[in-house]
Amino acid sequence: RIDGRRLWDSLMAMAEIGATPKGGVRRLTLTDVDRRGRQRFAEWCEALGLKVRVDAIGNMFARREGRDPGRKPVMFGSHLDSQPSGGKFDGALGVLAGLEVMRTLNDLGLVTEAPLELVNWTDEEGSRFGHSLMGSGVWAGVYPLEKAYGLRDVEGVSVSEALDAIGYKGPEPAQSFPADAYFELHIEQGPILEREGKQIGIVTGAQAQVWWDAVCTGRDSHAGTTPPSARKDALVATARIIDLVDRMMRARGEDGRGTVGFVQVLPNSRNVVPGEVRFSVEFRHPDTAEIERLAAEFPREAEAIARGCGVGLELTELFRFAHQPFDPECVDLVRQAAARLGYGAREIVSGAGHDAVYVARRVPTAMIFTPCKDGLSHNEAESILPEEAEAGAQVLFEAVVARANR
Amino acid sequence: RIDGRRLWDSLMAMAEIGATPKGGVRRLTLTDVDRRGRQRFAEWCEALGLKVRVDAIGNMFARREGRDPGRKPVMFGSHLDSQPSGGKFDGALGVLAGLEVMRTLNDLGLVTEAPLELVNWTDEEGSRFGHSLMGSGVWAGVYPLEKAYGLRDVEGVSVSEALDAIGYKGPEPAQSFPADAYFELHIEQGPILEREGKQIGIVTGAQAQVWWDAVCTGRDSHAGTTPPSARKDALVATARIIDLVDRMMRARGEDGRGTVGFVQVLPNSRNVVPGEVRFSVEFRHPDTAEIERLAAEFPREAEAIARGCGVGLELTELFRFAHQPFDPECVDLVRQAAARLGYGAREIVSGAGHDAVYVARRVPTAMIFTPCKDGLSHNEAESILPEEAEAGAQVLFEAVVARANR
Ligand SMILES: NC(=O)NCCC(=O)O
Ligand SMILES: NC(=O)NCCC(=O)O
Repeated sequence: RIDGRRLWDSLMAMAEIGATPKGGVRRLTLTDVDRRGRQRFAEWCEALGLKVRVDAIGNMFARREGRDPGRKPVMFGSHLDSQPSGGKFDGALGVLAGLEVMRTLNDLGLVTEAPLELVNWTDEEGSRFGHSLMGSGVWAGVYPLEKAYGLRDVEGVSVSEALDAIGYKGPEPAQSFPADAYFELHIEQGPILEREGKQIGIVTGAQAQVWWDAVCTGRDSHAGTTPPSARKDALVATARIIDLVDRMMRARGEDGRGTVGFVQVLPNSRNVVPGEVRFSVEFRHPDTAEIERLAAEFPREAEAIARGCGVGLELTELFRFAHQPFDPECVDLVRQAAARLGYGAREIVSGAGHDAVYVARRVPTAMIFTPCKDGLSHNEAESILPEEAEAGAQVLFEAVVARANR
Repeated sequence: RIDGRRLWDSLMAMAEIGATPKGGVRRLTLTDVDRRGRQRFAEWCEALGLKVRVDAIGNMFARREGRDPGRKPVMFGSHLDSQPSGGKFDGALGVLAGLEVMRTLNDLGLVTEAPLELVNWTDEEGSRFGHSLMGSGVWAGVYPLEKAYGLRDVEGVSVSEALDAIGYKGPEPAQSFPADAYFELHIEQGPILEREGKQIGIVTGAQAQVWWDAVCTGRDSHAGTTPPSARKDALVATARIIDLVDRMMRARGEDGRGTVGFVQVLPNSRNVVPGEVRFSVEFRHPDTAEIERLAAEFPREAEAIARGCGVGLELTELFRFAHQPFDPECVDLVRQAAARLGYGAREIVSGAGHDAVYVARRVPTAMIFTPCKDGLSHNEAESILPEEAEAGAQVLFEAVVARANR
């Protein structure tokens, strides 16, 4: 049995790194705060006798050897980076529950047949550089290392520079190695488990997504002297596109997701008609066909709006992925573990993207969800109970050990 | 006759301070770049034997004594601060043409009857702290010094701190003193003079304005897991209010002005439904009654939009002023000077706010406009011809000397 108290203490100790006044966490990927989180994690791993390796995109792997040197490792983990004003559990739960799995095996003096690899993936959130699931995406070969290295944050710092700055451009190649399975525990980040009073979500897959970078280009001019007919207001065009995204989402009912989360206005001065606006757009849906339709329709309708405002629109598709089903055998291990432990459980499709989505392209994968208060995440008020964390970690332990010893 | 070449050289020398790669100027009020501009201006004034005083809000006054110690001074000037990506002439023309008036009087060995005061007003643009015409507003008693001191920029720096930081919180009281008249030369910043081929605009007054600070408050949440019905998206509400501002402007035809120029999204992360948006709103109209109507209608309609999106809206009115007519006698001096010099001239109402608007509440005031290319201002591409600057400075010289010697 895992030690729920020790797991909670680790979660709270990690949450001190980048703690915000409102009780959340700001541990943006590849910042110095992230470096401190990584370092604490590495020290904890090394104290258990695990060997920590870092690859060229900064993914961290902590290995526990198995009895059979010929067996491929069973992987598990999540991410330690956070949103700008994120919660204490999004990502950290999966990594530190993985650490608790390792600690428990040490306590019990157990050696699994297959080796184990606990992973902390780089830049899961995507907030800083625009690609969510970056480290796992490179590892899985979804996009090349050089493309990831070249991504830049709003200050112009590249991923490559940021990795060098915190000393986490590691010597290992950033590419997948043969592995037997991957398990990821994560908070649901939505309301379903809480509403139904379930402790465990058996995640069968993740919904499809498409993300864009958008730039509207009009002309800066004086707010007091420029008559309506002479305006090329990039912000008015952007506002109408934001409204379009919301309407396209709602047209798809409760399964629709459409969000503009990031906006940068230039010159951003009260008495200047804005000449340029940079913003993000994303849509998600459980049905890949809906995402394909949105990916075709949105650019067309957005461009018509921009044209109507006399401004230019440039859309760059950042990524698009289909609904990703998880591996039935791995999913079944999660189902069995929850049943054996007597937890209330249900099947669920992930609304969020997770590193598991990309890892699943290379390795049989499954995920475990636990509830969070009011379904709230990407918010400093994100909150879970210690017994919820414990239940998730216990299921992770059982699934990992079962797979590694099969 | 003023020296057009010397004036142009001064304009170009000032434009070096805060020069941007695209040929504009970034000399935000009370920054170190502004300090360098002020210092160059003070040195030029002192080289002419003028005495420079600084008041408690950083307004600079360079005095040339008259023959009659009993006469009130004739004031003239403008501002040296700029927009974040502003032009070389917005404000600088009026200050440096004033300097050229002083230089020409020195060259000619002329002493006017009344003393002369050349002014550089603090923070005309309003971009950094939210109040345009700040220095002249405090001087004219439109709002108290302490209120101005307490205004903060987006980084949280107050006007008081910024004045201390650049050493421009001067010993003179920041309040109006008896003056005989105020003249301000400025580029039109609009298309009218250029379109009609006129060299001089005889400004009869300035249009009415109302400005707000707005905050929409919703709830941060995960873009992938939060269903449409559970969203409190502060940005969608803001987008619809931006659209409202544009529609309210257009409903008033070509005389309407309505602008959102500043937007700050929190947490501004691609995959977070935005929980808070801070933005600016302003309307302008030549007819004060229209501004009164807008000031009543806009809050009502904006609040209805916010409510419909399930988010809160807080509106803070920053200032509101009526159409400001200028002094008929002073205006007439401008008209006569333009006619005497043979320049094509027309009457015009100012679309922009100017320090002259507030000064006019204390002192008989007039303004002189000169054309600018494509009517473009608050843009790095703002452009005028040397002969246009010369014509404006010549009219300023004639009007000031006529008034000071009457
Ligand atoms: N789990 C999580 O919040 N991931 C961030 C990536 C996304 O789903 O946008
Ligand atoms: N002249 C000028 O651009 N003033 C800025 C204040 C305003 O009109 O918004």
